[in-house]
Amino acid sequence: MASPFDAINPDAYSAYVFWSAVLVAKILLMAPLTAIQRFKNKAFANPEDASIISKKLKPKLDDIDVERVRRAHLNDLENIFPFFVIGFLYLLTNPAPFLAINLFRAVAVSRILHTLVYAVVVVPQPARFLAFMGAMVPTAYMALQTILYFLR
Amino acid sequence: MASPFDAINPDAYSAYVFWSAVLVAKILLMAPLTAIQRFKNKAFANPEDASIISKKLKPKLDDIDVERVRRAHLNDLENIFPFFVIGFLYLLTNPAPFLAINLFRAVAVSRILHTLVYAVVVVPQPARFLAFMGAMVPTAYMALQTILYFLR
Amino acid sequence: MASPFDAINPDAYSAYVFWSAVLVAKILLMAPLTAIQRFKNKAFANPEDASIISKKLKPKLDDIDVERVRRAHLNDLENIFPFFVIGFLYLLTNPAPFLAINLFRAVAVSRILHTLVYAVVVVPQPARFLAFMGAMVPTAYMALQTILYFLR
Repeated sequence: MASPFDAINPDAYSAYVFWSAVLVAKILLMAPLTAIQRFKNKAFANPEDASIISKKLKPKLDDIDVERVRRAHLNDLENIFPFFVIGFLYLLTNPAPFLAINLFRAVAVSRILHTLVYAVVVVPQPARFLAFMGAMVPTAYMALQTILYFLR
Repeated sequence: MASPFDAINPDAYSAYVFWSAVLVAKILLMAPLTAIQRFKNKAFANPEDASIISKKLKPKLDDIDVERVRRAHLNDLENIFPFFVIGFLYLLTNPAPFLAINLFRAVAVSRILHTLVYAVVVVPQPARFLAFMGAMVPTAYMALQTILYFLR
Repeated sequence: MASPFDAINPDAYSAYVFWSAVLVAKILLMAPLTAIQRFKNKAFANPEDASIISKKLKPKLDDIDVERVRRAHLNDLENIFPFFVIGFLYLLTNPAPFLAINLFRAVAVSRILHTLVYAVVVVPQPARFLAFMGAMVPTAYMALQTILYFLR
């Protein structure tokens, strides 16, 4: 019996795997980025972490720099994980490879820019809004196309 | 060589893809829902966002309405992402299509109701608890079935 | 036409599915663990939840025990979801099955230990750091290998 995956275009598929792996690596980098800010600002979430610096240091949960990185991290989870899922399902709807490849690229590049302007250099708006939409619009487009494909 | 995906039932598989795409769209809608509450309550997380309204407006991280939508959003990540993974793996355990399709439906409908009663209209308990369990129970069932299938 | 999934090693694949299902079950258990702490400390996030105990009980968002479990839960999302994605994509890079199986094991066992030392018994550092790295290092390794495979 043929599997539903036999129709996947190899080029679109490779682009999906490559950019997804890049985005996984990008998400993983948020952990050391948070740790750097925690040590720099001596703002640890747990007493057992704060005591690495000093037994007297109390946990601090409202440090501005740490919370900014954590918001960028959470925003990644909210937007990149849906992409991982819908990017894969969209591949199965037999899209034009050129379109699919560029949608994946747009999401990946936008999400890397999003982290840079949110948590690394802090650029004024609308920089972060544009980076956000650069990933949100292709992801929403893929979700709609996938829904429509299965309603047909 | 046969791939492990050759045995997937096409109807169960289509139901998985369709409901997953619907849930991706649902998760993506949490972003504009949060933005609406942020503008309505003038409660922005970052100074560069608050300054869109006024240079004097300070970030506000404890707005009741905004935080409610954010908790609903986080609850989605905690529950819908595990479903995306286990729904797919469960498909590979050769389940009865009728059962699989209805489990997927139960999760998707429950999670849509969860958002409605949590972040849109705010219905008294046990509305949210029941919507939560309507997705949690099928997801946990699929996880157990998948573990048991591979222990056999 | 051959699908890109035909090359997957069945043993490595089974290990991925098994450990992923275990980790899904582990993530799902964070919800009752949070609920236990919420009831124990009477710390509910929403007025409609607090009123189950008493109409006078106000929401409490900074309970130490509840927030610890929630941080462990969020840390799961930040680290286990990337593993679900990259573990699957790594399988497609034709890795040595023995290596792949042990990487999956390392991630799963480390993340279970992470929850135990973070949110169940609270062990001093470096226990949590080591458990974190026990999953982070294999996940980052798989991400790098997958990126390199597609750059070749």
